[in-house]
Amino acid sequence: MDGSSLSLIDIGDLHLKDSDGTRQQALFFAIRKKIVQGLWVKNGKLPSTRKLSQALNLSRNTVISAYEQLVAEGYLNSQKGSGFYVAVELPEQYLPEPNSVQRDSSPKTNFDINRAFAPGVPDLDAFPMAQWQKLLARHMSRTCLLGNQDIQGSWALRCALANYLASSRSVSCSPERIIITSGAQQALSIATMVTLKPGSKVLMEQPGYAQMRKLIQFQQYQFEPLYIREQLGFDVEAVTASNADALYVTPSNQYPMGTTLNTEQRGKIINWAVQQSRWIIEDDYDSEFRFDGPPLTSLQGLGGEDCVIYTGTFSRILHPSIRLGYLVLPHSLIEPFKTARHYFDGGLSLLPQLALAEFMACGQFTSHVRRMRKIYQQRRDRLNSLIETRFPHILERVESDGGMHSVYLLPDGYRDSDICDHAQQHNLGIRALSRFYADEQQQQGLVIGFAGYNETEMEKGLAALSKVLETTD
Amino acid sequence: MDGSSLSLIDIGDLHLKDSDGTRQQALFFAIRKKIVQGLWVKNGKLPSTRKLSQALNLSRNTVISAYEQLVAEGYLNSQKGSGFYVAVELPEQYLPEPNSVQRDSSPKTNFDINRAFAPGVPDLDAFPMAQWQKLLARHMSRTCLLGNQDIQGSWALRCALANYLASSRSVSCSPERIIITSGAQQALSIATMVTLKPGSKVLMEQPGYAQMRKLIQFQQYQFEPLYIREQLGFDVEAVTASNADALYVTPSNQYPMGTTLNTEQRGKIINWAVQQSRWIIEDDYDSEFRFDGPPLTSLQGLGGEDCVIYTGTFSRILHPSIRLGYLVLPHSLIEPFKTARHYFDGGLSLLPQLALAEFMACGQFTSHVRRMRKIYQQRRDRLNSLIETRFPHILERVESDGGMHSVYLLPDGYRDSDICDHAQQHNLGIRALSRFYADEQQQQGLVIGFAGYNETEMEKGLAALSKVLETTD
Repeated sequence: MDGSSLSLIDIGDLHLKDSDGTRQQALFFAIRKKIVQGLWVKNGKLPSTRKLSQALNLSRNTVISAYEQLVAEGYLNSQKGSGFYVAVELPEQYLPEPNSVQRDSSPKTNFDINRAFAPGVPDLDAFPMAQWQKLLARHMSRTCLLGNQDIQGSWALRCALANYLASSRSVSCSPERIIITSGAQQALSIATMVTLKPGSKVLMEQPGYAQMRKLIQFQQYQFEPLYIREQLGFDVEAVTASNADALYVTPSNQYPMGTTLNTEQRGKIINWAVQQSRWIIEDDYDSEFRFDGPPLTSLQGLGGEDCVIYTGTFSRILHPSIRLGYLVLPHSLIEPFKTARHYFDGGLSLLPQLALAEFMACGQFTSHVRRMRKIYQQRRDRLNSLIETRFPHILERVESDGGMHSVYLLPDGYRDSDICDHAQQHNLGIRALSRFYADEQQQQGLVIGFAGYNETEMEKGLAALSKVLETTD
Repeated sequence: MDGSSLSLIDIGDLHLKDSDGTRQQALFFAIRKKIVQGLWVKNGKLPSTRKLSQALNLSRNTVISAYEQLVAEGYLNSQKGSGFYVAVELPEQYLPEPNSVQRDSSPKTNFDINRAFAPGVPDLDAFPMAQWQKLLARHMSRTCLLGNQDIQGSWALRCALANYLASSRSVSCSPERIIITSGAQQALSIATMVTLKPGSKVLMEQPGYAQMRKLIQFQQYQFEPLYIREQLGFDVEAVTASNADALYVTPSNQYPMGTTLNTEQRGKIINWAVQQSRWIIEDDYDSEFRFDGPPLTSLQGLGGEDCVIYTGTFSRILHPSIRLGYLVLPHSLIEPFKTARHYFDGGLSLLPQLALAEFMACGQFTSHVRRMRKIYQQRRDRLNSLIETRFPHILERVESDGGMHSVYLLPDGYRDSDICDHAQQHNLGIRALSRFYADEQQQQGLVIGFAGYNETEMEKGLAALSKVLETTD
């Protein structure tokens, strides 16, 4: 950036409209308006987040979040250690149309990360940014000269991942058996498209991962619920008696209840799949974060090599915008999955894969996981003691051994969906437990993410939740 | 990289095995073996490509390609202006198992880019690498702090793309109507999954894009061929008389024959789709590279806004490992596509999208396209005159107005698939025209990519092709 063309932008008449959603969104729209109208000039330096938050009487996090959103959408550039600058003189048509403005303020999209207690959001402050940037810089000089890539994903990344999974998760694995995906969701969609056809029956935990259930319904597979009985997990006999074609399961940290299957239960399920020639889709989305012992042996590693399709994701461990996940396949499925991948998606950008491969190969990944595990355990304990103090008779915690969120049950008379709808207006990302069910056999509860939020943010969030609980009835 | 730990690696007894495929593959395996066995130490500097090519009596391109493959797979790092270095001390298990070694030397996978005349491979020497790296560097500091992203892809990229498509391709477009995909293939798979169901009939050009045909068959849609009559394109009446649910078409540069539809034909097709409520999937994969005039108006921009699903890709214009493409949707399909995207793939890595957004917004993209168009026109003409001189009675060019490859028909008595199988052993990426057909109504011909190859490479490639044609009968 040319230093001579910089001018410090005056806050002037920056006007936040109440109709523009949350404070953060109002600030986003106000700044964007200045930029697209040409009132704030190209390369102009914005006020520091500290200065602007004082001037407008906003929290500094609100200003940071608005600036980051403006960076994400191309209106601002950020320079490390220097500040934020107007990116380019965007023409008027860069302003989204009215329906997209609505989109930005719709509670269902984006920016969940800026809502306290959103489940699955990692602690981004703890991400080793400088190291990650070094790796990206090292690989970016050659990436674009590389030609058509491997349909299964970067070989280097698959080597590093095979190594990691074998040692940390007891997954029987070689790089040939891995396919790198754009995250857990793509892994699940390829897995179902190869192994199932319309009408196939899928057994799935209830409550469970809603996106998987919707995928099942979208693809016109039959859905058979497998009810979780708090603490006990599900009834393994319900699996072994089932004629389902496939079982989708989160054995090491049931999503969202956090129960685990013991070795005996795991053995029975594997026997069922082997003897009846059924597929198991094992979603191991965050078992890295088990606090009270090492991660449990995967179903895949416990004799399920030939019947288990094992999936995992990096978005929770690293950062959500990396969008990388993976599948570990039985040998018999490698070729069919490669074929399907060819037809459905020709592969992913190479640069993030190469950076991650080196991040793993040189040991930074495992030390990052170790560090996060400690932070998350402290945060889970902190959240729990704050909640016990504040809501002793309302929120009852479901015991669980790890993860990035906790589930709290509500007493009779509370509707979790009302609470969560209301909470979203207070910028809380808490989820309703009932939304994890396909049917009416619902427990009412709150799914509260703790991984991405420090103590101050938790206390602020719980103060907001307190107001919500008082006024929602 | 720590300069003090560098040691210059001696070529020593680098042994190329004839059983290891092409010279390039043999060199790749030989170097990899040295590295995984620990004989070439971490951070050791490799001999320059010039020195190694002289020592082993290989072409310099062969050495460069082998080095790049080693970089891609994580065995080497490259430092701009300095050279190549052993990346890390990889343990023994990093060696692929026997079946994967076979994979690397299988003609069907990867590294097509290193085979002369592969269609669709751009001129990577002309890619503005320094500028691209600057953009990546500018965005990488913030990318990983950004949370859950927009399921349609980066807003900034969609804004820049809408602008570009409106001005260069007359596509009716706003960012709300765009979905960023991992390339053309993902765009086509989402498009078919939303608009069709098993049993739906798809009308598709023959010869045509083989990956699309395979997707149709994989998804159990019915396939109806629409035969291309050389120069004339297809018979529009065959479309208007059809009861197909959707038409897949490449109107601006028929793939692979290079014919175009005129405005009258386009009007008839759009009328058919509007009146009969059918979908048109318009694949505009490389119409940027029309040489004899501006790109033709898209079907989508010619009144097809409500019935055309328009797709394009960046892999051909920029570089294949970027893996970005897009869909432009009728308003009525935006929500269904967003839903499907949610289920099939949670979105893509943000960094390459943000870099591309700025590359487009600041005008570098259009000047790159202009520059490539000139280079490719010269290369097409050069290829043609070289072929006319060398193979006057064998290869007859199919006239076409642009693109990145030319089609040459073969006289009776030649089987194109035999020639291409044989050509692959000579490291040529030429494709057999018959492979673009679903059935036996095939013309025999060669599909020869010219975009990625300079005059020297062309002459070398044609010398090899000459040998192939002499010995294949």
